[in-house]
Amino acid sequence: MRSRRTSRRRTTSSARTIEIQSLTGFRDFYPDELALRQHVFSAWRRVGARYGFTEYDGPPLEPLELYTKKSGDEIVGQLYHFTDKGGREVALRPEMTPTFARMIAARAGGLPKPIRWFSIPQLFRYERPQRGRLREHFQLNMDIVGETDPLADAEIIAAAIDALRELGLDHTHIVARISDRRLVSAILSALGVEAIDHAAVFGALDKLEKEGPEKVGATLRERGLSDGAVDRILALGPLSLEGIAETFAADAGVADAAAPLVEVIGHLEASGFADYVRFDASLVRGLAYYTGTVFEIWERSGELRAVCGGGRYDDLLSALGGVDLPALGFGMGDVVLCELLKDLDLVPPRSARVEDFLICVTEDERATALALARALRDRGRRVSYDLRARAVGKQFKSANQAGAARAIVLGPEESARGVASVRDMASGDEREVSIDALMNGDNHGKG
Amino acid sequence: MRSRRTSRRRTTSSARTIEIQSLTGFRDFYPDELALRQHVFSAWRRVGARYGFTEYDGPPLEPLELYTKKSGDEIVGQLYHFTDKGGREVALRPEMTPTFARMIAARAGGLPKPIRWFSIPQLFRYERPQRGRLREHFQLNMDIVGETDPLADAEIIAAAIDALRELGLDHTHIVARISDRRLVSAILSALGVEAIDHAAVFGALDKLEKEGPEKVGATLRERGLSDGAVDRILALGPLSLEGIAETFAADAGVADAAAPLVEVIGHLEASGFADYVRFDASLVRGLAYYTGTVFEIWERSGELRAVCGGGRYDDLLSALGGVDLPALGFGMGDVVLCELLKDLDLVPPRSARVEDFLICVTEDERATALALARALRDRGRRVSYDLRARAVGKQFKSANQAGAARAIVLGPEESARGVASVRDMASGDEREVSIDALMNGDNHGKG
Repeated sequence: MRSRRTSRRRTTSSARTIEIQSLTGFRDFYPDELALRQHVFSAWRRVGARYGFTEYDGPPLEPLELYTKKSGDEIVGQLYHFTDKGGREVALRPEMTPTFARMIAARAGGLPKPIRWFSIPQLFRYERPQRGRLREHFQLNMDIVGETDPLADAEIIAAAIDALRELGLDHTHIVARISDRRLVSAILSALGVEAIDHAAVFGALDKLEKEGPEKVGATLRERGLSDGAVDRILALGPLSLEGIAETFAADAGVADAAAPLVEVIGHLEASGFADYVRFDASLVRGLAYYTGTVFEIWERSGELRAVCGGGRYDDLLSALGGVDLPALGFGMGDVVLCELLKDLDLVPPRSARVEDFLICVTEDERATALALARALRDRGRRVSYDLRARAVGKQFKSANQAGAARAIVLGPEESARGVASVRDMASGDEREVSIDALMNGDNHGKG
Repeated sequence: MRSRRTSRRRTTSSARTIEIQSLTGFRDFYPDELALRQHVFSAWRRVGARYGFTEYDGPPLEPLELYTKKSGDEIVGQLYHFTDKGGREVALRPEMTPTFARMIAARAGGLPKPIRWFSIPQLFRYERPQRGRLREHFQLNMDIVGETDPLADAEIIAAAIDALRELGLDHTHIVARISDRRLVSAILSALGVEAIDHAAVFGALDKLEKEGPEKVGATLRERGLSDGAVDRILALGPLSLEGIAETFAADAGVADAAAPLVEVIGHLEASGFADYVRFDASLVRGLAYYTGTVFEIWERSGELRAVCGGGRYDDLLSALGGVDLPALGFGMGDVVLCELLKDLDLVPPRSARVEDFLICVTEDERATALALARALRDRGRRVSYDLRARAVGKQFKSANQAGAARAIVLGPEESARGVASVRDMASGDEREVSIDALMNGDNHGKG
């Protein structure tokens, strides 16, 4: 919807100017949209701090090889990449993890473990323009580096859930689907699938929702899996952890591989998140680098949308940054989330922008008004006034337009007595307050 | 200094990985640097709100023509620009004003005037790599659109000063140099300089500090100015407004042209900023589009550096966006400012990251600890704990490392009695508190 808005824009172009539009897939943030973005970012930052995470950031432009190294050359097709004037191949960052890995690697020795960092980068992808698809979005990234214990997995999932709870979403709106690639691998082994084929099976399973069981089943059979194995793989989705334990009771490998996930879910239940989490053996996630726990948070109702995805990637930092440290994390984008908040009426009303609107009856009061504005602002109050001499009625109109909580009227007669008339804009109540008291803050809480 | 750091980085690369460095001139923001950046951005946002301004943002990537239209093709040499996969010429934004003009123009009719907006974009320039020169920085942009009265000029200059005062800088650190192109133009006319040459004289005067009076004098004489006119132009710098009024008493045009500036400075004095502002007739600013008030804020001591520049550009929105509205504003970058804050020891210490560090004596207390963490975080407290079972001494070490204010120790004996031991990490004082009270927040303010 947003990108289509661009084409509907009309401006009052004068004859000598050409209207230049923004690039397709890039958003303008007018004050209302920026306020919602800040609302989301502030909530994310509060949750980051509550979980003991610190914020970092990196460059929006990186060497192209930082991404091809991780994902191979096929990723180039989706990248916003260029050759710069120095002949260097560069790309607008499509994800934060390679930058994160580079930064961690550069200081790995000096950072106490586990490292708990978060970031809110703007990310870019070059996609063919189509119905409302954006080429940029913001994404909360939270990661823990240097810890293999399932407590870390539970911690990062809890933080992801709280990043949404902080915005007013609860277990009636969202659910975290959780699985573990080690467990699914053990199940595949128990079903006779060779280890070398597991990655391909993950890739096929990841398309289950989109392509349906028939097509995925065919893909699996093409890879040489037996009909029986394929049927049992496709039936994994609805199974509970207990169901899997029963089904594969004979296979110790499956029970062993289930242990970390059982712990993760147990910790989340102890944390009071039982209503938010659901084991889902059909969840594998598309990216190749996950090594253990994987999870996605979905909205429950209406048109199902994923708002968050992540997992454990114990080998990636070694491959990307040259430091051998276990790690896990998630990404949560702003676009689907903000749509969801709007759909659920969870966008907060914008708070009154202005607290005190100053009104001068004549220009003789201007100097007093300016001194008062300075005094009020120095105490942190939000102050505005008309930026030219106008009739009092028009100034009150401006005060209304600014959403001011109170109007402070300075007039010649009152000024002579050292007072101003203070009007509560909601109730209309007016009373006289000494200008000294207004200057010194003896009265700023009340109309 | 920052960009040189890159080359000093060393990582423990394993044989199969190649270290990829960030691009020259781009900063990584590790937690300490990000904390300083957030400190500055938060101060800017507070000041913006206090002046009744609302925040906006636009895309970091824009069509190249958005910039060439304003500044001509010569600007392309300094732009980070590319041809994208669709064959479109695009550029990483080097400044915010063209985006601002585009956004204002698209909704000009519906926005109440004056428009008071601010933004904190990251901006990009392609410069040859040299000693510490960056290719990106962040910049506070504040603008007022739709008001010609000098009150608006005073307001924007006051906001710029307060954006620095909010960070601990005062009139002993900074000074705002203020002038008005209309006044300098009137003086040039009084000196017999043709109107058509004024822009060239502004351009020459802007180089006065860098090139010295001899070279600038020669440039002016080359343009056909008389020796007498050149001498008097070069002597403008130290003149006060009163001095100018005296010198050009015979020329009514100069007195008329001085009127807005006299008002601006009068308003700033009424606002209590007399110590912060200084008229400086030699200030013209380099950019061609200024039409009236111009100002720059400089640090006073040590190596002089400008931290802010701006002015009135009444014709630019019409040229750029096709809406004929007067406007004024300023830009304030983060790089020089953060150097200045560091030099003046105005970087705040990082606040204690963690408030409560939870310690489990045995894993039997884990579930209680997780429930307590959830309860504390739901009340907004910053909570952390070790993400695996460890000896109590090591957990206390982690609590210290995290800068925790208090450690909450859960042990089997205490848990049986429904209490936890709470240690104030600064004083070492320890006392027992009921777990219920900790859960319900009856006790969270105290150790």
